[in-house]
Amino acid sequence: MGNSLLTYPCPTGMEEGNKEFIISSMNQQNFSNHLMSVGKAVHDHLDTLLNSNARDIPEPLLLAMRHGLLNGGKRLRPFLLIESAALFGVSQQQAMQTACALECLHSYSLIHDDLPAMDDDDMRRGMPTVHKAFDEATAILAGDALLTFAFELITVEGNHRDPSVRAELATRLAKAAGASGMIGGQMLDIIAETTQLKEEEIRTLQKMKTGALLQYALEAGAILGNAPPKDRNNIIRYGEVIGLAFQLSDDLLDVTSNAKAMGKAVRKDADRGKATIVALFGIDKTQALLKQLSIQAINCLESFDQSADLLRQTAEYISLRKS
Amino acid sequence: MGNSLLTYPCPTGMEEGNKEFIISSMNQQNFSNHLMSVGKAVHDHLDTLLNSNARDIPEPLLLAMRHGLLNGGKRLRPFLLIESAALFGVSQQQAMQTACALECLHSYSLIHDDLPAMDDDDMRRGMPTVHKAFDEATAILAGDALLTFAFELITVEGNHRDPSVRAELATRLAKAAGASGMIGGQMLDIIAETTQLKEEEIRTLQKMKTGALLQYALEAGAILGNAPPKDRNNIIRYGEVIGLAFQLSDDLLDVTSNAKAMGKAVRKDADRGKATIVALFGIDKTQALLKQLSIQAINCLESFDQSADLLRQTAEYISLRKS
Repeated sequence: MGNSLLTYPCPTGMEEGNKEFIISSMNQQNFSNHLMSVGKAVHDHLDTLLNSNARDIPEPLLLAMRHGLLNGGKRLRPFLLIESAALFGVSQQQAMQTACALECLHSYSLIHDDLPAMDDDDMRRGMPTVHKAFDEATAILAGDALLTFAFELITVEGNHRDPSVRAELATRLAKAAGASGMIGGQMLDIIAETTQLKEEEIRTLQKMKTGALLQYALEAGAILGNAPPKDRNNIIRYGEVIGLAFQLSDDLLDVTSNAKAMGKAVRKDADRGKATIVALFGIDKTQALLKQLSIQAINCLESFDQSADLLRQTAEYISLRKS
Repeated sequence: MGNSLLTYPCPTGMEEGNKEFIISSMNQQNFSNHLMSVGKAVHDHLDTLLNSNARDIPEPLLLAMRHGLLNGGKRLRPFLLIESAALFGVSQQQAMQTACALECLHSYSLIHDDLPAMDDDDMRRGMPTVHKAFDEATAILAGDALLTFAFELITVEGNHRDPSVRAELATRLAKAAGASGMIGGQMLDIIAETTQLKEEEIRTLQKMKTGALLQYALEAGAILGNAPPKDRNNIIRYGEVIGLAFQLSDDLLDVTSNAKAMGKAVRKDADRGKATIVALFGIDKTQALLKQLSIQAINCLESFDQSADLLRQTAEYISLRKS
């Protein structure tokens, strides 16, 4: 039963490869430093983008958007987008605006998910959630505004010289973030609060709620770099597998971590009796699954040279992360 | 003071023109029939678009999206978009998907505006609002999903052969609907519940909350038809003036109509003591202003031949509408 999680389609012949990519503790430190450095660049660019659009935005709305967006997240999605783009010859600078758009979209989803009618969370990244710091109406509007801003940032002329790249980036983002992607996953998550889901349904939920947007991060890099179809497929599959891994590690941290390390409430799923893979399989088996997904993700990158090492390290980082 | 509402910049030399366009009662009937016929075509196409994307959408989310979208609205925004596109040689069929995207966006804004944390409305177009028919969480998600779907419909390859048209349609929509447009207007509207706004501030609120999206409808037609800059400017200005007219007529109907005709609660603004132009000037003066705006809108169309007659009739329709 557990193995069904591990049979994600990777390029032929890789399933048995088991080419584990070991990060030494020295590399782990380098990786963390690099992630932080890209995260800081994303933060600064988000700040600049909001400032340059601030003049015509009512003040409480702008402050709420800033509160939801510039609150010290790890910026994992922009990082993945930038690293994927780099594989295809696109500089960090060229990928930055699309990466920021993705973070705007991710931030909107957190603001709305935290609302009283949804997950009803008071804390996020160690700070009051937007509806706590402001009010519900302002939080709904700030979320709406960040979602809308994401599509402006992607489609605006200055983002990329080729309009077909801009249009495709937007179409794929809308698909990943929409009713059959992230939003649909959140709907299933709400249904899961009152209905006991089966393993298959939990996997669908997680692929939609968390996986779709992580996968988009990788695909967007390939679109920006006009990658050949085979490379694009490989990087998308890598995204699919680390999406699953990320959700497993999130579920594990919900059980094993504490609120201080996470900057938000923990054990919420467990306390609500919500079905997760951890609840189905237990901690040890889930940790083993997570390790195997990390190896599988690395195998998806076999056709890339050492330029993909940071993505290989990301797969291990996700399986080892503590917050 | 009232005249400041009437000094919208129209093409030079038109301010004094006062070329009133009188709709005979026969023409009024023809116009209503045409509006209904386009509205029906938009409704049917929205239904088709949702159906063709339904397979992967969780059922309660899909039903809530349908409830919010397919509830018998007049489809004024799609109508304006289609009529504007027609001026520049674009067929109804070619403009239909962009028109539907605009209606998805408008519907999302109504779903979110009706939420308890916002305007707290129970009825919309004679039916329970989405959070009443479903629940708050589902309503928030259905709104998010329709907003996201709008950008998918616009940017997807099948919508228009020229990707730069698709990208520009999306950028302009994001601007019109975003934090410095419609969403910002809704934020000001919430602020207006506890703060007495001045006339200038009310006009800013209305330009953002209602005007920006109506104006986009006209601009989108010009983008689809690759209109020359002068024509594009004229049609945008027409959009700006009828946006003001539409909001005035809405404020008047809030005071003079009844819930049955409107399909929603009335006198909400008046009962809350909210500042509107009607509250500032009274009914008679507002009606006179509305009439003058309608004439001014028609004057903005001077450079167009009889192909713009339906838009001229729309300006009168807005000043005379009863629901």
